[in-house]
Amino acid sequence: MNAATSAYDVVTLGETMLRFSPPGLQRLEQATAYEIHVGGSESNTAVGLARLGLRVAWLSRLGENALGRIIAAEITRQGVDCQHICWAAGERVGTYFIENAPPPRGIQLLYDRAHSAMSRMQPQDLPAAVFAPGSGRLLHLTGITPALSETAAATCRRALQLARAAGWRISFDLNYRSKLWSAAEARAGCEYFLSHADWLLLPLADVQLLFPELAGEEETPAAVLARLGERYPVATIVLTLGAAGSRARGSDGRQYAQAAIPQEGQWQARIGAGDAFNAGFLAAMLTEGEDLAEALRWGAAGAALKFTILGDMPLWQRAELLALLAEETSAVSR
Amino acid sequence: MNAATSAYDVVTLGETMLRFSPPGLQRLEQATAYEIHVGGSESNTAVGLARLGLRVAWLSRLGENALGRIIAAEITRQGVDCQHICWAAGERVGTYFIENAPPPRGIQLLYDRAHSAMSRMQPQDLPAAVFAPGSGRLLHLTGITPALSETAAATCRRALQLARAAGWRISFDLNYRSKLWSAAEARAGCEYFLSHADWLLLPLADVQLLFPELAGEEETPAAVLARLGERYPVATIVLTLGAAGSRARGSDGRQYAQAAIPQEGQWQARIGAGDAFNAGFLAAMLTEGEDLAEALRWGAAGAALKFTILGDMPLWQRAELLALLAEETSAVSR
Amino acid sequence: MNAATSAYDVVTLGETMLRFSPPGLQRLEQATAYEIHVGGSESNTAVGLARLGLRVAWLSRLGENALGRIIAAEITRQGVDCQHICWAAGERVGTYFIENAPPPRGIQLLYDRAHSAMSRMQPQDLPAAVFAPGSGRLLHLTGITPALSETAAATCRRALQLARAAGWRISFDLNYRSKLWSAAEARAGCEYFLSHADWLLLPLADVQLLFPELAGEEETPAAVLARLGERYPVATIVLTLGAAGSRARGSDGRQYAQAAIPQEGQWQARIGAGDAFNAGFLAAMLTEGEDLAEALRWGAAGAALKFTILGDMPLWQRAELLALLAEETSAVSR
Amino acid sequence: MNAATSAYDVVTLGETMLRFSPPGLQRLEQATAYEIHVGGSESNTAVGLARLGLRVAWLSRLGENALGRIIAAEITRQGVDCQHICWAAGERVGTYFIENAPPPRGIQLLYDRAHSAMSRMQPQDLPAAVFAPGSGRLLHLTGITPALSETAAATCRRALQLARAAGWRISFDLNYRSKLWSAAEARAGCEYFLSHADWLLLPLADVQLLFPELAGEEETPAAVLARLGERYPVATIVLTLGAAGSRARGSDGRQYAQAAIPQEGQWQARIGAGDAFNAGFLAAMLTEGEDLAEALRWGAAGAALKFTILGDMPLWQRAELLALLAEETSAVSR
Amino acid sequence: MNAATSAYDVVTLGETMLRFSPPGLQRLEQATAYEIHVGGSESNTAVGLARLGLRVAWLSRLGENALGRIIAAEITRQGVDCQHICWAAGERVGTYFIENAPPPRGIQLLYDRAHSAMSRMQPQDLPAAVFAPGSGRLLHLTGITPALSETAAATCRRALQLARAAGWRISFDLNYRSKLWSAAEARAGCEYFLSHADWLLLPLADVQLLFPELAGEEETPAAVLARLGERYPVATIVLTLGAAGSRARGSDGRQYAQAAIPQEGQWQARIGAGDAFNAGFLAAMLTEGEDLAEALRWGAAGAALKFTILGDMPLWQRAELLALLAEETSAVSR
Amino acid sequence: MNAATSAYDVVTLGETMLRFSPPGLQRLEQATAYEIHVGGSESNTAVGLARLGLRVAWLSRLGENALGRIIAAEITRQGVDCQHICWAAGERVGTYFIENAPPPRGIQLLYDRAHSAMSRMQPQDLPAAVFAPGSGRLLHLTGITPALSETAAATCRRALQLARAAGWRISFDLNYRSKLWSAAEARAGCEYFLSHADWLLLPLADVQLLFPELAGEEETPAAVLARLGERYPVATIVLTLGAAGSRARGSDGRQYAQAAIPQEGQWQARIGAGDAFNAGFLAAMLTEGEDLAEALRWGAAGAALKFTILGDMPLWQRAELLALLAEETSAVSR
Repeated sequence: MNAATSAYDVVTLGETMLRFSPPGLQRLEQATAYEIHVGGSESNTAVGLARLGLRVAWLSRLGENALGRIIAAEITRQGVDCQHICWAAGERVGTYFIENAPPPRGIQLLYDRAHSAMSRMQPQDLPAAVFAPGSGRLLHLTGITPALSETAAATCRRALQLARAAGWRISFDLNYRSKLWSAAEARAGCEYFLSHADWLLLPLADVQLLFPELAGEEETPAAVLARLGERYPVATIVLTLGAAGSRARGSDGRQYAQAAIPQEGQWQARIGAGDAFNAGFLAAMLTEGEDLAEALRWGAAGAALKFTILGDMPLWQRAELLALLAEETSAVSR
Repeated sequence: MNAATSAYDVVTLGETMLRFSPPGLQRLEQATAYEIHVGGSESNTAVGLARLGLRVAWLSRLGENALGRIIAAEITRQGVDCQHICWAAGERVGTYFIENAPPPRGIQLLYDRAHSAMSRMQPQDLPAAVFAPGSGRLLHLTGITPALSETAAATCRRALQLARAAGWRISFDLNYRSKLWSAAEARAGCEYFLSHADWLLLPLADVQLLFPELAGEEETPAAVLARLGERYPVATIVLTLGAAGSRARGSDGRQYAQAAIPQEGQWQARIGAGDAFNAGFLAAMLTEGEDLAEALRWGAAGAALKFTILGDMPLWQRAELLALLAEETSAVSR
Repeated sequence: MNAATSAYDVVTLGETMLRFSPPGLQRLEQATAYEIHVGGSESNTAVGLARLGLRVAWLSRLGENALGRIIAAEITRQGVDCQHICWAAGERVGTYFIENAPPPRGIQLLYDRAHSAMSRMQPQDLPAAVFAPGSGRLLHLTGITPALSETAAATCRRALQLARAAGWRISFDLNYRSKLWSAAEARAGCEYFLSHADWLLLPLADVQLLFPELAGEEETPAAVLARLGERYPVATIVLTLGAAGSRARGSDGRQYAQAAIPQEGQWQARIGAGDAFNAGFLAAMLTEGEDLAEALRWGAAGAALKFTILGDMPLWQRAELLALLAEETSAVSR
Repeated sequence: MNAATSAYDVVTLGETMLRFSPPGLQRLEQATAYEIHVGGSESNTAVGLARLGLRVAWLSRLGENALGRIIAAEITRQGVDCQHICWAAGERVGTYFIENAPPPRGIQLLYDRAHSAMSRMQPQDLPAAVFAPGSGRLLHLTGITPALSETAAATCRRALQLARAAGWRISFDLNYRSKLWSAAEARAGCEYFLSHADWLLLPLADVQLLFPELAGEEETPAAVLARLGERYPVATIVLTLGAAGSRARGSDGRQYAQAAIPQEGQWQARIGAGDAFNAGFLAAMLTEGEDLAEALRWGAAGAALKFTILGDMPLWQRAELLALLAEETSAVSR
Repeated sequence: MNAATSAYDVVTLGETMLRFSPPGLQRLEQATAYEIHVGGSESNTAVGLARLGLRVAWLSRLGENALGRIIAAEITRQGVDCQHICWAAGERVGTYFIENAPPPRGIQLLYDRAHSAMSRMQPQDLPAAVFAPGSGRLLHLTGITPALSETAAATCRRALQLARAAGWRISFDLNYRSKLWSAAEARAGCEYFLSHADWLLLPLADVQLLFPELAGEEETPAAVLARLGERYPVATIVLTLGAAGSRARGSDGRQYAQAAIPQEGQWQARIGAGDAFNAGFLAAMLTEGEDLAEALRWGAAGAALKFTILGDMPLWQRAELLALLAEETSAVSR
Repeated sequence: MNAATSAYDVVTLGETMLRFSPPGLQRLEQATAYEIHVGGSESNTAVGLARLGLRVAWLSRLGENALGRIIAAEITRQGVDCQHICWAAGERVGTYFIENAPPPRGIQLLYDRAHSAMSRMQPQDLPAAVFAPGSGRLLHLTGITPALSETAAATCRRALQLARAAGWRISFDLNYRSKLWSAAEARAGCEYFLSHADWLLLPLADVQLLFPELAGEEETPAAVLARLGERYPVATIVLTLGAAGSRARGSDGRQYAQAAIPQEGQWQARIGAGDAFNAGFLAAMLTEGEDLAEALRWGAAGAALKFTILGDMPLWQRAELLALLAEETSAVSR
C-alpha cells in the first residue's frame, strides 16, 4: 500500500490455501455447497500475531486470479501486510478439502496443492529489502514449506540467511506433513532449519516420527526435551504435547512445563490450534521479555481460544487472550 | 384485535429487542448473515405462559417501524395479546448482538439499546383499562425495566400500583443487568418492587452482588433465603441457583428445595432459561393452587426444556412440560 | 384467546396448506432443503384484509400436530383471529410442492392434499356463535372448498346460510381448480354459491371453462360481463382479466373498467395475486362505501403489490397500498 | 437401465419416505426451510451394502411424481439398482418430519405415510424375474412393511416365498413401529417372517414388547437369546442391545457377544444406526463366510460409523469400515 | 454394477469437473460458500439423453477420491451408466469456478483443470468391450477432449476407431475452448474428428474463428453451411447460431432452418445450453428416424428448457420436452 | 499499520454503517436472517479508488466494538488504509436496514444512525498529520456528513481547510439525504463546501430540490449546468442524471455529455452506483490528466459495473473497468 519504509515485528513465509469444507457434519458428497476458508500454518500464525498488536508481514507466492486475491484480501483484513506477495500469472492456488467427523471416523483432509504457485517460489522471489537490520524482529518458518519443492526449500534457506544477516531471530515449527514427504525426507529437509533457528517449536508426535532414537514411546517429555537440548544446545526448544500441554527448555538447560488450558471447544475448531499456540508463544517472547514460562502460558491460552473459533485462523481479540491469562493467573494464585 | 373486554391471567411489561446472532459458532466478524430472534425477559415469560394455555398480554413501547412490527408479530404468533403496545413513531427499537462461544471464551452480548422507544415509556403510556379488577390475575415485572430510564422506572411503579389496586398479584424477577446500572443503583432502584411484590424471583448471584450483607459467598442458599425472608417477610421468595436448582420460602417461613432437571441441551440455548423457569413457576402458581413445591418443579421443568430450544423464547408445548413433570415424579417416587 | 364477544368485519373459511418450495430456480430434485410457506386462498385474503386494519377471522379444520400449528401460528401472526379453528387429532395437514420456472417451463404445482383434515370438515364443525347479526360484516368463500369433499361443500353451504341469516354480505371467488374437479363438476358444485352471493369474483379464464356458452374466446370482457349479469342479476360481479386488469358490473347494470397497475415483480411472487386482489377489493367495499370503481382500484393495487412479495400471503402495509393508490390517482389526474 | 440378466447379492423390499427436518436444533415451527433426506429401513440397509461393494436391488412402489423420483434417484446415486420399482401414477409418497432435540425433550417423529403408494403394493407388483435361483443371494425384509397394509404384508410373504423357491437366504429385522400397529398386531403380523427367515435381527426392546413371556426386564440378553433360540431353533438370531452392543446365537446354539464400538457421533445421526448395523452384519455374512463373530463386529462397526453420518443412510466408504475393523482387532489383541 | 452384457444407445467420452459457484450474483471474493455442481460437455449431453429414456454410458478418467466419487455419483443419479470410468489413485479432479454477472460484466470462468486425471487418460484406458457391434448406437465426442493433452486426443481417436469398427454412428461437437488451445491448434487437432464423424455439431462462432476462410463475418449461415458441406460432404452438419437458432444440412445438400424457442430463463442457466441442444438433437436422430428438421426442433426445445434449469446438466423430464414440442408445433400450424 | 510517512492519493471522510438486508426479495419481517454489508458513501468511493490502484485513506469515527471492527476490517480488506480511524469506546455504530422490492413497491431504507460515534466526531479527532502538502492529492467529502450533526459539519469544514492548506484538491458530492435534514437546511449546510470545492458532483434530482430557482423541471441539464457554472464559476461541475448519463462543465465553461453505459444489472445492486461513478470519475481525474470527457467515461463505466455487483461497495477489478472502457471506445470509433 503506502509504507515507504517497513518495520515489522514478525515476517512469515509459507503457502496458504483455499479450504473447502461442507457445513457441519456433512460429508463432502452430501453437501451442495462448501464453506470457504483461508488457511496456511504461517499465515495463521501471522494473523494471530497481528491481532495481538504486532506488526506482521506474510511472504508467499500466489496465483494471480480470484482465488489468490481472496487469500491476500482475507489476510490483509486481519491486519497482516500482504504487499510483498509475489503474484504469478497463470499459476494455480493450492486448495484443500476437509470432511469433519467425530470419532471413530475423524477429520479427513484431501489436499490438491501440487503444482501450486507457492511450490514454484524461488529465492529471487523474496523481497530482499524487507530483511533490513533492526531490533526485536523475527522470521517465522515451518517444516511445511521445504516439503513443497526444492525451490521452496531453497527459498526458505535464503530467507533464513537474509534474516540472520539482518540480526533477526528465527523461529521454526517442525510441522511434519506425512502427505508431502516421508519422515526420513523430512528429517533431512528440516535439519538446516532445526540447527539454525533460535526458537524451535516441536510437536512431540513429529519428533517421535522423525527422531525415533531421541523419543521412544515410553520416554517422558522431559527426557525427550533434554536429548533435543543436547542435539540443538543453542536453541530455545518448545515441545508441544497436545492435550498434555507443552514443555520448554531454555538454552541454559532449564525446563518449564505448562498444562493445557481446559476448553469445551468443538473438534471442527481444532485445526490451527498449533499455529495459534505459536502466535501466543511468539507474541509473548517478543513483547514480554523472552520469559519462557510466560510465553508457554500465552501459547496455552492461544491454543485454548482457537478451539472456540471456526476456521484456520486465530481470530481472537487481544483483550480476550489477556482476560484468559488473568483468569489463569488468579486461578493459580488463589 | 377484537376483544371488547379483556381478561388476562397474566400481564407483563418490559422491553423486547431484536437480537442478531451469527449462525453456529461463528464470530460476529466472520458471519455474512445474522440470524434474527426476538428477545426480552418479560415477553419470553409471557410466551412461555401463553403456550401453557394462559391468557397473557404484553405491554411495551415500540418504535413504529418494521423492526418494531417484527417484535409484535412474533410475540402475537406465540399467542400473547399485543394489542396494548404503545407505538412510537420515529423512535428506535433496541437491538443486541450475541457471539456464541463455548468456554473458555463464553457467550458475549453487545447491547445497542440506549435511546430506545421503551426507555422513553411514561406512566401515561400504560393502557389503564387493562388493569381491571378480577380474580387470579398477575402482573409480572423484572428489574431490567427500571434500569432503562427514570420514566421506565416510573412506568413500572405505576403499573404495580394499578395492578395492586385491581387486586392482582405482583411477581418480580430481580434480573440484575450490570451493563445498565451498578449494584448500588440496582438495589436502590429495585427496592420498591422487592418490597411490594407478592412473589420474588431472585437469582442467587444477583442477591450476592446487590445484598452482600445478606449473602456471603460461603453462606448456604437456605441461610440466604432465611435472611431474605426476614427482610421481605410477606413475600413468597424463590432463589434460583443455576445448575444447583432452586429453593423457595413461603410467607409461613417454610422452605422447599428443587434440584435442576438433567438436560443435555446446548449452551446456545441457555439464554432465556431463567425466563422459562419463571413461566413454569408462575403457570403452576396460577393453575395448581399456589403449591410452592409443585411450582418449583414446573420451574425446573421449564428451565430444562428451554435448554433444548433455540432463541430466547420458551417455544414448548404444554404436553411436553407435563410429560417431563410426569417422568420426574415417577423418577422421584421410585 | 380472550375475546368474550367477537365482532369481525370479515370471516373466511377454507383450507390452508403447508407449501414446500425449492430456493430460487432449483428443481424439486435439485434442492437439499425446501422453503416453508403457508398458503390458502381464503387465509391469504384474510391476511391481506387484517393487514389493512380490518377485524378478520379464519375458519378451518386442521390436523392437530406441528404442521397444523405452524399454519395457525403464521396466520395469527398476521393479525387474523384463529381461535375458531377446528382441531382434528390424528388427521393430516394438506401440503403442496412448487417448482418455480420461467417460461417455457412455467411454474408447476404438486398437491398432496387428499385425506386432509379440512376435506373432512362437516357443518357441525362450524362455530355457529361467530355468525351473529351485525352491521358491515362479510363471509368470504371460494370455489376451492366445495371441491375438496361433499362434507366440505356442505360446510360452505351451511356457513353461507348462517351468514345470510345474520344479515352479512357474502362474497364468492370462483377459483376453479382443475386438479380437484372437472369443469362440469365445478359448475354444478359452485352454482349454489354463485346464485346466493352478493359479490362475485370471477376470473375470466374460469368463466370460459365453466360457462363456455357465456364466454366465447372472441367475446369482449364487457359482453361476457353483461351475460353474467343476466344470469346473476342481483349480484355485483367482478371479472378479473389477469394482465388486462378487471371489470365490474353493479346490480344496476353499470360497468366499470380498471387497468392492471404496472409492476416489475417476479414470477415467483405471482402466486396469491388473485387473493390479494380480493383483499384489496373487499377492503374497499367494506370501508369506502361500496364504491365499485374505487374497489377495483384497491384490487388492482393489491394485486400489483403482491407481485413484489414472496410467499402466498399479501404481506403489505396499509400505508403502502394507500401510497400506491395515491400515485395512481395523481398519475391519472395529471 | 440396461441389465439384461441381473444377479444381485441382496434384494430388499420396503417403503422409503421423503424426510423433512429443520436445520440443527430448530423446532419444526421455527424453521423457514426443511432439509430433505430420503429414508427407509430397507433402502438404508441396501445403500450400506452397495457402498460395501455388494450388488443390491431395492424393490418398492412409489408415487410417480417429483417426490418419488427424488427417492429413486438418491438411492440409485448410492449404487443400488432401482430399475424394478413399481411406479404408481397419481399416488402419494410417504413423508415424515423430524424434530431433533437433546434430552430431556428427545427426537420426535411425525409420520404422514397413510395412503402411500407403497401401502397399496400388491404381490403382483413384484418383479418375479428378479427372484431367480443362484448362489449367495439374500432377501432382506423388515417388520415395518407388513405393518403398512394387508396388501403390503401379502407382498412381503410372496417375496419371501419367491426368494425361498430360488434358494436364497432370508433375513428379517423385527423393527417394531408402535405408530403403525400394536404389539399384539405386530406379533401376529411378523410371526410368518420370524418363523421362515434364516437370519433374525431382533432389537431387544422390541422383543420385550412383543414377547414379554420371553424377555422380562430383569432377564439377561443371554437368557432371552436362548429362549428365542428355542422358539426359532433353525434361525441364526442376532439380538441388538443399543449401547450394550449385540449378541448372536447360531443354529448350533452357540452364542457370541460384541460390545458397541465407542463413538462420539451426534444424536442427530443416530437415525438409521440399526439399518447400518444390518448392512455391516449382512455384508460380512455374505462375504466373510457366515462367521457370526466377525459379522457382529462388522455390524458394530457399521453402527458406530453411522453415528458420524447425517441423514438416514450409511454413506460410508468400504475403506472406512475396514479401517475401523482393523483398529478394533488390534485394540483387542493388545 | 450388474450388467453382464451392455447395450447402450449412446456412449460419450470426456472430462467432467467439479464446479464452484458463488450463490446468486455474488463475486467469488464476496461469497463465504460456493455451490457445488458437476459439469462436463459430454456428461451433460449424456444426462440429457438418459433423462429422455435412452441407454447411455459415460467414459472418463477420474481421480479416485471424494471429488471424483461425487462426479460419478451425480451422473449415476441421472441414469447414466458410470461403471466403465477409469479410476486413477492419487490423481486430481479438474475444477472450475464461475462468477455470474449480467452485462456489461458477463460470466467469467476460472479453470483449474491442468494435470487432471482425465488429461492423462490413454487409449488403453478405454473399456474396449463396450464398443461391441450393434444397431442404432452412437459415440459422441467433442473438441474439448483432444485439447486436454496428446494422450487424451489419442484416446478420442482410438474411441472413434473402435466405434467405427463396431458400426456405430459418430457425432462430434467442435466446442472450441480458447483457454485450452489456439484456433490454429484446434483446427489441426479437430480435423481428424471433423472428417470422420457422421454428425457434426458446429457453433457458428467457433467456425468463424477456426475456419475464417469459410465463414466471413458478413456471410449468411446458409452460405457458411454450404461451404462446410463442400468440405465435409458425407456428414450431416448442424450449425448452431445462438439466439438465431440453428441450421442443418443433410448429406444430400438440403438445408433446414430452425428458430430458437423463446424463453425467459436466467442467464445463470445458460451454461450447458449447447450440450442440451445436442442431447435433444441426438435423441431425435436416434429415436425419430433421423428426421433432420425434427431433430433441430428437439435441439431447440432442449436448449430452451435448459435456460430454465440451474447447473450444467439438462435436468428435464421427457414429458416436458414433448409438451414444449407439442406447443411449438401447434404454434407453428396456427 | 506500519507506515511511518503516508502519502495518499485520496483521503475521504464520512460515516459508514452496518447494513442489514433480507436475502433476495424477502421483506424484513419475512426473513430469519439478514445479510451483513458495510456501506457508506465516502468509504464506497474510497474502496472503488483503492481497487483501481490508488493509495487511499478513509477517516471516520467508529464505536469500539465488534460492529465497528467489522467496518474497519472490511474496508481494510479492500485495500483502503484505515489506521487513522478514531475509535470511540462505548459509543454506537450506525446501522441501516434495506428492504428490496421491484416497482411499484421500490427499495425502502430504514436508518438507525442517530447518536452514532461518527455523529459525535469533532475537528480535533482529525489526524492532522495526514494532511501534509504533496502533489496530486485529493480530499473527497459528501453532503451526508455535515447533515449528521454540527460537530460533524465542523469536522468536514476543518478537513477541507487542512486539505486546502496542504494544496490538495477538494471534491464534494452533494448527496442530499431527506431523512437527515430538509432541503433548506441542506442548502445552508452545504454552501460552504459547494463554494470551496474544486470538483462538484451534483445529482440533478438533488439540485432540483435544493436550488429550485436554478433547476426547474422543464429545464435541460445543459441549462441547469450553465446556471450552476455561474453560481460556482471556479469549480469543475458534474451533473449526474441517472439513466440519462452525466454532463460536466469545466471552469472554462465548456460542457461535456456522457451517456449511461447499458447494463442489465439487478435493482438490488444499484445502491452505491453514485459512489462508484465518483470513484471512476475521480480516478480518471487523478490519473488521466484531468481530462473531463475521459473522466465522465470512467464514471459511467464505474456506475455500469456497480449495477452488476451486490452490496454497497464497487468491488471491481481495474482490468474490468479498462475492458469496459475499451469496448466503449471501440464501439464509438467504429
